[in-house]
Amino acid sequence: MALRVGVIGGGQLARMMIAPAVELGLDLRVLAEDEGMAAQLAATEVGDYHDLEVVRAFVADVDVVTFDHEHVPQQVLRALVAEGVAVHPGPDALQFAQDKLLMRARLEELGVPQPDWAPVRDASELQAFLDEHDGQGVVKTPRGGYDGKGVRVVRAASEAQDWLDGLADGEALLVEELVGFVRELAQQVARRPSGQIVAYPVVETVQREGVCAEVIAPAPHATDRLAQVAEEIGRSIAEGLGVTGMLAVELFETDDERILVNELAMRPHNSGHWSQDGAVTGQFEQHLRAVADLPLGDTAPHAAWSVMVNILGGPQSGSLGERFAGAMEAHPSAKIHTYGKAPRPGRKVGHVNVTGDDLDDAVYVARAAAAHFD
Amino acid sequence: MALRVGVIGGGQLARMMIAPAVELGLDLRVLAEDEGMAAQLAATEVGDYHDLEVVRAFVADVDVVTFDHEHVPQQVLRALVAEGVAVHPGPDALQFAQDKLLMRARLEELGVPQPDWAPVRDASELQAFLDEHDGQGVVKTPRGGYDGKGVRVVRAASEAQDWLDGLADGEALLVEELVGFVRELAQQVARRPSGQIVAYPVVETVQREGVCAEVIAPAPHATDRLAQVAEEIGRSIAEGLGVTGMLAVELFETDDERILVNELAMRPHNSGHWSQDGAVTGQFEQHLRAVADLPLGDTAPHAAWSVMVNILGGPQSGSLGERFAGAMEAHPSAKIHTYGKAPRPGRKVGHVNVTGDDLDDAVYVARAAAAHFD
Repeated sequence: MALRVGVIGGGQLARMMIAPAVELGLDLRVLAEDEGMAAQLAATEVGDYHDLEVVRAFVADVDVVTFDHEHVPQQVLRALVAEGVAVHPGPDALQFAQDKLLMRARLEELGVPQPDWAPVRDASELQAFLDEHDGQGVVKTPRGGYDGKGVRVVRAASEAQDWLDGLADGEALLVEELVGFVRELAQQVARRPSGQIVAYPVVETVQREGVCAEVIAPAPHATDRLAQVAEEIGRSIAEGLGVTGMLAVELFETDDERILVNELAMRPHNSGHWSQDGAVTGQFEQHLRAVADLPLGDTAPHAAWSVMVNILGGPQSGSLGERFAGAMEAHPSAKIHTYGKAPRPGRKVGHVNVTGDDLDDAVYVARAAAAHFD
Repeated sequence: MALRVGVIGGGQLARMMIAPAVELGLDLRVLAEDEGMAAQLAATEVGDYHDLEVVRAFVADVDVVTFDHEHVPQQVLRALVAEGVAVHPGPDALQFAQDKLLMRARLEELGVPQPDWAPVRDASELQAFLDEHDGQGVVKTPRGGYDGKGVRVVRAASEAQDWLDGLADGEALLVEELVGFVRELAQQVARRPSGQIVAYPVVETVQREGVCAEVIAPAPHATDRLAQVAEEIGRSIAEGLGVTGMLAVELFETDDERILVNELAMRPHNSGHWSQDGAVTGQFEQHLRAVADLPLGDTAPHAAWSVMVNILGGPQSGSLGERFAGAMEAHPSAKIHTYGKAPRPGRKVGHVNVTGDDLDDAVYVARAAAAHFD
């Protein structure tokens, strides 16, 4: 019987696991939040992942559990593990992707380079941090943020007063040094439960309004030293935190040539979508191999350059499908991936991958093809 | 709403359309012959494709109909077309893939190079053909043959007596010249209903006991002239026969440097599986684009060489899945595709694709990875 991989969450990351699961002969089963979600084709259950009984019923029919997102509560995950369910990544690793204060503390223990940071419980603690950092900082809610939500640049403690007021007893906000970065990078690695790790080339990511807009693989002008440092950071975090499956490490490259860890994601990540069409083993296949504890695949790129451009929002009226013919006709080398989602301003509804020997050409084609869906 | 593509037949070709359909956002629906077939994940109906009522009910919910195989009867196809259903390839084209005598006559009209051939109704007609062709020939049943079945090399009319005895009134066998070929090639092209055609590079195919065993893309030592002639043959057949979707033309390369058409398939074909991992647009995506009348994708290879090796039969005991870890660990660059079928001697249960700059290496890795599943 085929190995059954259960994915909690029915979004586009679960959807993009379907293609490699079919080819590998894995039986992919998805617990979706609602009917008609992106991963609908593989959805075997619909229910609330906060509810242990719902999750327990779903995992009864799978061999290994993994995730479309990092929002499944620790108490649910720990109950499953206690009952002998194979959960990858497990709660001990996932807590560091769920709580940014825990992450910062653990990365400090591991000696991983990161921005200055502090937990702050009130305005005076926050103001003290700002005073020590040129009067500015980035305040983050430790939990629940994504795509720029839960992140605020402040130049006075009063600018975070609403969040401070909302803290319960024992809670804190995270404040970080506002890093003078020249660009953002991302390092993907995959790690199996049995310990094997493979690394993808470090990539450059371009964000717009806190949301990933474009990715170039490998990062242009990346020196061997930079690529090596990024890979070592990825490997040491995967090992140090016991991550299983794909790990994405978002990085700042500073104007003084340092690399600092920004955020972590323990799942396939937008910064790795290029690998679907640009690498021997795409990140969705790699994630499945890793969580199933199968030997990991070759991460080598197919071409000199791969460019990914997100389709954000989608057309103001109608469906993505109506724009297909125009994009395909103008750009036969563009690989268009859609998430089966209704267009909505700012929503990630698809992406375009282009590979080639010439970076400028690949960027042009990927942007032009994606623009057909605006 | 997503475009709905209905596939008649639930085998591995339908299965391998699932991955690109998900990424393109097409709603793939499959009429499977039985429960639990290769394309099970996308199966929306189970029933007999010979039964017009079954097929009519299936196609009521789709926008375009295509096929996993060529066995749907003409009367079923023609009834659908008469009712306004978009069928690709249509019955006028598909008849030439269903009946080899029709195909030979039509290719002769088109002036496409092919072996000498004749329809034979009795032993004296067959013997007369053999006498004119060095006393030997290849006898074929015009309908229903595949993977070497329905094909027999004979050196006397009596060797086909059983088939001759089985002919109904008005039926004939096909006899062809036994071509002294140096190797077999295959040319894939895709054609849209609106007329656009794209061609893949000509490939070399290696058969064992009448079944495709290996494919190398592009065909080694293929001169520009040979590649051009093969492409022109593919294009002229697609146009001349009005094929929509993928067309595979199996070719003989003779010792006197001619190229002769052996067989046709109007669907994704084993000789094109390499393109899943070796070309910008794989044949399964291309078939979907073509039958949906979407602009066709770039057929350029990713790498200098792509090699496909079939997994034939599978392990004598257990499942393919049990052999995965060994194959993956030894060959991280091998792309293993499985069909969700139980192992059985001679059955195609999966294949391995490998791409690279060095042909010998790619052949070695693909064969070695496939051998893990023996």
